[in-house]
Amino acid sequence: MTAETLHTDVAIIGAGPAGLLLSHLLAAQGVESVVVENRSREYVGARIRAGILEQSSVDLLTDVGLGERLAREGDQHRGIHLQFPQERHHLDFVDLIGRSVWVYGQTEVTADLVAARDADEQRFFYSISDTRLHDIDSDHPSVTFTDADGSPYRLTADAIAGCDGSFGPSRSAIPGGATWEKTYPYAWFGILADVAPSTDELIYAWHPNGFALHSMRSDTVSRLYLQVEPGTDPASWSDDRIWDELATRLGHGQDGWELTAGPITDKSVLPMRSYVHAPMQRGRLFLAGDAAHIVPPTGAKGLNLAIADVALLAPALGDLVRKNDARLADAYSETALRRVWRCTHFSWWMTTMLHRSGDPFEEQLQLSQLRWVTSSEAGATGLAENYAGLPFEV
Amino acid sequence: MTAETLHTDVAIIGAGPAGLLLSHLLAAQGVESVVVENRSREYVGARIRAGILEQSSVDLLTDVGLGERLAREGDQHRGIHLQFPQERHHLDFVDLIGRSVWVYGQTEVTADLVAARDADEQRFFYSISDTRLHDIDSDHPSVTFTDADGSPYRLTADAIAGCDGSFGPSRSAIPGGATWEKTYPYAWFGILADVAPSTDELIYAWHPNGFALHSMRSDTVSRLYLQVEPGTDPASWSDDRIWDELATRLGHGQDGWELTAGPITDKSVLPMRSYVHAPMQRGRLFLAGDAAHIVPPTGAKGLNLAIADVALLAPALGDLVRKNDARLADAYSETALRRVWRCTHFSWWMTTMLHRSGDPFEEQLQLSQLRWVTSSEAGATGLAENYAGLPFEV
Repeated sequence: MTAETLHTDVAIIGAGPAGLLLSHLLAAQGVESVVVENRSREYVGARIRAGILEQSSVDLLTDVGLGERLAREGDQHRGIHLQFPQERHHLDFVDLIGRSVWVYGQTEVTADLVAARDADEQRFFYSISDTRLHDIDSDHPSVTFTDADGSPYRLTADAIAGCDGSFGPSRSAIPGGATWEKTYPYAWFGILADVAPSTDELIYAWHPNGFALHSMRSDTVSRLYLQVEPGTDPASWSDDRIWDELATRLGHGQDGWELTAGPITDKSVLPMRSYVHAPMQRGRLFLAGDAAHIVPPTGAKGLNLAIADVALLAPALGDLVRKNDARLADAYSETALRRVWRCTHFSWWMTTMLHRSGDPFEEQLQLSQLRWVTSSEAGATGLAENYAGLPFEV
Repeated sequence: MTAETLHTDVAIIGAGPAGLLLSHLLAAQGVESVVVENRSREYVGARIRAGILEQSSVDLLTDVGLGERLAREGDQHRGIHLQFPQERHHLDFVDLIGRSVWVYGQTEVTADLVAARDADEQRFFYSISDTRLHDIDSDHPSVTFTDADGSPYRLTADAIAGCDGSFGPSRSAIPGGATWEKTYPYAWFGILADVAPSTDELIYAWHPNGFALHSMRSDTVSRLYLQVEPGTDPASWSDDRIWDELATRLGHGQDGWELTAGPITDKSVLPMRSYVHAPMQRGRLFLAGDAAHIVPPTGAKGLNLAIADVALLAPALGDLVRKNDARLADAYSETALRRVWRCTHFSWWMTTMLHRSGDPFEEQLQLSQLRWVTSSEAGATGLAENYAGLPFEV
């Protein structure tokens, strides 16, 4: 069967937030794209991921016309609560650095993006298979794939954006790249529950039993996490056991604070991993988001890092495609990686400060550091400026 | 042979800076002490140790009449240089936090203290042996020892101060204590050289070959360090090799900076270890300085921590001995340990940020952190407030 050939300015592999936002930013510059995705539209729209947007992410989404529902339904948080035994401290990012964060789930960001792209008649191929990249070192790269109906396609483009996550084909199309990886010796057991959050803002809790986090999705949906052993089977914990352990670690009953339990609608166990691939560009292939880097969820950097990559990549591709000016494109990898490493360091720092490692010396270092961060303005400011998000270029 | 019995208010074991300063501060409160030390007076006065005094240490020494020569011969530094490949940044602590540090060697501090104690007719026993502690859980503790002439003594006191370092008998007289320990997988090769320093303030340098530090003792004496493998034999490095490696790591030739070599007068290899013992008090025995805790030298906390312990311990012992009021004495261990852990964390942080561990992921975290510390005001301020010294009570 002969492949049907299509041409576009930028072939975008992956219809997650990175790929969708890139197509949106490119369209705003008059650059055409086709988005191809091996999952179904329903799967991509429903998967539960991050829930915190940095100030820079919110500003960008708002600037490009994607902020209406976010402003209405998103919940601006001034900061976070940082807790260790007998003490809960509020770090007020607005007071510290004049920036803040928003609770607005990745599912919502994706829904807003899909609606905007549909309104703009963005061309998508969902549920594709056999995705392959070709000729990325030439000026005429292409992507071949089989569509949902079994028809073969060749998509030629001036550039390819690899927004296809950790397991997509783009990263491995850059031979000889360097990778850095760290697997943490713990995992997160996450639940969604149909119950109003018991806190106004997120609680990050260090506890002798292990880390716990009280997050939320809305006024009626809570998201909570427990540090567990890697490989824990979510089915092996009863709902009662989950709520009991959350109550213990989050300090139910301390200073009158209570954790309200409710029906659990989702249970999952997340591995904790740091991963960076460099360079993020080779010839006409550019990586963005999870395709190039993974951070552990502590500190909520994953989605925001994908948005930051795309914020750099869109103008670079615009210049490349429209003006044949490669300066930003050539600088993309180095510029993006500086921020990637900043966030990778911050995520590692938050993770290793809050999780029990079983090493008694590290435990004392963690507690001393938590005391310092919650009592020193410099310590609190350092956390705030990283958590609420550094500028796109650092 | 029957032991001669002496009585004093406070028996101080150890004539290093902690023990000497404690005897000085006690005398200023009208509390009598006897200082016993198993080394000779010459040995204690000559041993080469730390060279940086924090603002709090300088303030205290000045307040108690020990600041005259320090003010004349000590060299106030506004901050430090922090270096990584191709970049050297000056962190100005005075600008950041209004505090600074002084270069003034431990040998000088010791000499000033010995002179002051001699002028005050402080009673010392040097070169003692068989030091033993007795009855620390009673109100009548004592120390027995054999003096330099072989005569046995029993020194009874209202309290004992264990200022006898990591290897003295005091720490092990507290049974059932908790200890935390970390041995780092590298050591410092330190040299003293009769050459004017090639830098106005200390240079802490991250380098692919390993950490290097350019410190100094005076206008004519430089003190430099290289990260080496533990167990390195100082004799196995020629002077030329030492200077070559220092030049490489410290960036000789970059931006016109030059390292001037000179005659090396001392070579030694220092192990890198963190150690904390708790509690720091049991009955009438109180630990101060290295007897309770060891920090790696990065960040120059050891001597300052000893001074901070003594600054808390002296009034506590004054109240105990003069007024029979044990409140400060009872709080001493907990109060001191908060600061001990803060400095232990900071020393660990500086150490792990600057030394090559051989882990490529950690290396990228180090460089990202160094970039952040040298570009973020919060990052720089956090380093400055810990380096220049927190208040005695944290």
